[in-house]
Amino acid sequence: MKNSANLASPRPNVVVIGAGFAGLRVVQGLAKACVNVAIIDRHNYHLFQPLLYQVATTALSPADIAFPIRRIFRSQKNVECVLGDVTQIDLNRSCLTIDNAQEIDFDYLIVATGATHSYFGKEEWLRNAPGLKTIDDALQIRKRILLAFEEAENELDEAAQRAKLTFIIVGGGPTGVELAGALRQIAVKEIQKDYRHVDTSTARIMLVEANDRILKSFHPKLSAHAMRDLEKLGVEIRLNGRVTAIDDQGVKIGDERIDANNVFWAAGVLASPLGKSLGVELDRAGRVIVKPDLSVPGYPNVFIAGDLASVTSSDNNKPVPGVAPAAMQMGEHVAKVIKQEILSKLPVEKRAPFQYRDKGSMATIGKAKAIADIHGWRFTGFIAWLMWSMIHLMFLITFRAKLFVMLNWAYTYIFQTTGARLITGEFKPRIRKFRDVTPN
Amino acid sequence: MKNSANLASPRPNVVVIGAGFAGLRVVQGLAKACVNVAIIDRHNYHLFQPLLYQVATTALSPADIAFPIRRIFRSQKNVECVLGDVTQIDLNRSCLTIDNAQEIDFDYLIVATGATHSYFGKEEWLRNAPGLKTIDDALQIRKRILLAFEEAENELDEAAQRAKLTFIIVGGGPTGVELAGALRQIAVKEIQKDYRHVDTSTARIMLVEANDRILKSFHPKLSAHAMRDLEKLGVEIRLNGRVTAIDDQGVKIGDERIDANNVFWAAGVLASPLGKSLGVELDRAGRVIVKPDLSVPGYPNVFIAGDLASVTSSDNNKPVPGVAPAAMQMGEHVAKVIKQEILSKLPVEKRAPFQYRDKGSMATIGKAKAIADIHGWRFTGFIAWLMWSMIHLMFLITFRAKLFVMLNWAYTYIFQTTGARLITGEFKPRIRKFRDVTPN
Repeated sequence: MKNSANLASPRPNVVVIGAGFAGLRVVQGLAKACVNVAIIDRHNYHLFQPLLYQVATTALSPADIAFPIRRIFRSQKNVECVLGDVTQIDLNRSCLTIDNAQEIDFDYLIVATGATHSYFGKEEWLRNAPGLKTIDDALQIRKRILLAFEEAENELDEAAQRAKLTFIIVGGGPTGVELAGALRQIAVKEIQKDYRHVDTSTARIMLVEANDRILKSFHPKLSAHAMRDLEKLGVEIRLNGRVTAIDDQGVKIGDERIDANNVFWAAGVLASPLGKSLGVELDRAGRVIVKPDLSVPGYPNVFIAGDLASVTSSDNNKPVPGVAPAAMQMGEHVAKVIKQEILSKLPVEKRAPFQYRDKGSMATIGKAKAIADIHGWRFTGFIAWLMWSMIHLMFLITFRAKLFVMLNWAYTYIFQTTGARLITGEFKPRIRKFRDVTPN
Repeated sequence: MKNSANLASPRPNVVVIGAGFAGLRVVQGLAKACVNVAIIDRHNYHLFQPLLYQVATTALSPADIAFPIRRIFRSQKNVECVLGDVTQIDLNRSCLTIDNAQEIDFDYLIVATGATHSYFGKEEWLRNAPGLKTIDDALQIRKRILLAFEEAENELDEAAQRAKLTFIIVGGGPTGVELAGALRQIAVKEIQKDYRHVDTSTARIMLVEANDRILKSFHPKLSAHAMRDLEKLGVEIRLNGRVTAIDDQGVKIGDERIDANNVFWAAGVLASPLGKSLGVELDRAGRVIVKPDLSVPGYPNVFIAGDLASVTSSDNNKPVPGVAPAAMQMGEHVAKVIKQEILSKLPVEKRAPFQYRDKGSMATIGKAKAIADIHGWRFTGFIAWLMWSMIHLMFLITFRAKLFVMLNWAYTYIFQTTGARLITGEFKPRIRKFRDVTPN
């Protein structure tokens, strides 16, 4: 069945794929425009990804960082929310297909489907080294972490127990650093007293980074500071570490074999496969190389926004990084271009190029520590963590989320205990040897 | 491998199966006793089941009502927590098997594994009519509810849309009543403005009860009041309704066929299958018929506590109901019996019989309404709801949960919006016909 859009209509159809930071900003930017907007996502919620690692590490619940898209656009009457998977896009016919079943025409299209993990061609690593991009990923990692401690508690064989208490995090970017810090925090503070036979603070948490420093998007001084803070916390860091194998027993770094039952992937980023399906030029990471106005070459009515776009900022020619603020700014830019075209009939050649305003970047390191780089001002430690906390609370979408996340953090800070230590979904502990559960 | 307990030890091994209300109270009651306690559960958390329907209906998150067992017993040093499934119990050899792999000896055993759903021999109904006993059940029901509205929004066929908006709840006990009320509340208040094409307040919510009144454990006047309140809210109630068929298209009540894509089961209760495996006498609901002291006939060192026990209260000979307060009292009773035996060498014949103190019962009906029966004092409406809220907050185990659940309720009450409207886990919308998402 085909729904034909009424092209004679004065209200153009704008279709946005993806309700991440970029997609949301496009739709919000079109709030007062005389257009029909449809936002399509495979989930019914917008996910605040910067805090996803806190779901994986038992600090927050999914509902604290995920918000129904319908609720966000409840009062914006020109928006339709569609739950579905875009399976095909035909740029020449200006239409797309949802769930292999339904074609929808568009006058403008914005593809904002972001990025996923890249295992650099070793897709078989996925099974033993899950990544952290979705709520389901986070719950999966949470389950693995909690089961690891449960299994270690009852493991009599020392080498096997060691492997269960060894966590390897591949990738020293912000996600890897935050995951490693939070994990170490759990092992040392949250749960140590809950176990009888195993000292959880002996858990080995290793961060493997292929480069010669972690957090390489930050100033080298901040990288060094973060590394010191992490090491003080007890995280082992392997710089220049190349992972050559991953199986269910451990990893190989270079030629060294490390037995580890828990491997998490925070390394490669691969653009959403929808980019490739457009049939236009991509960069090495699979991102669509767009024109300065963010439109796809040859298709001025099709835009890419967010992590899927490969573009340089028009003011300094530097590549725009794949971070949330950049995605938001791209979303706003695209909305503005569309509005100008509709309202002022601005010709395509006169469109403003996208200009990225770098407002700074930050990352947390364990409890109440962070690094921040704001316009060349560098902050570390508790001050940076306060800034980090405040900015993340500010950007959380709903007042409810701000309130509950803040209270959660305050509670965890004061009482040193996280609130969501649940093993949910199906599982099967991997040990079959039990300690005598009632030793005399 | 077999762990032999040291029977010459001065510290007897007490093994508790199940970390529900009964199991928890047994363990807590033995805090100062000179025993080794092991508590075995297939989950790593204690679930506060009375609020589970609020997870299913998007009001609360799992972590608000589930608490790590290890955390609860962190400071009680005579307790071991074991994550596992008890697959066999040998009363004559005083040992049990976990996960078909590990045998554990006990001096005392308390089986407190509660109850599950009974489909009255129609186990095939499970697939189309999930029940509500576990966190995973609740998330499954939440997903089905949210998907139903999503699918209805895009369904063009009127009859099909009607079926998607029809929710049948089988069983008019507290769970059924609370589920129906909360569901109607969502449809009418929470989400109505979020949809563009479907008026969610037209959702048909039908409560089917086999008896001639709902909430039959309450006084008839309260049943009648609850029924009026539910009907005022817009819930349809079918008394004397016998469900004769359930499939993926709907249900048959007597001879009447009702098309409904959403059927939830809150009817039969069947005792945990572990009861049957004991090889002792059971009642019709599969519960173990215990002696007045809650021990299993012939095995004075084995007790049943909670919903799995079939017993009459020693003061009035009335059967003890399968409710949370009864389970807690049974747990306390068993702990006391064991302590007296160990400390004062009280002979088995002199054990005190279990006496149930009925402290009253209550159930909520939609938003800010409830019924309560406290020692013959009957309350309804807002007052009863306040009592219900306060008592449930009181019994939530952690301060954190009390705080967060209270804030959640306050927020939802004031802003009329629930906080956990997420579709998580795998899913596939059941519609393939889309409305034109950008109508002109």
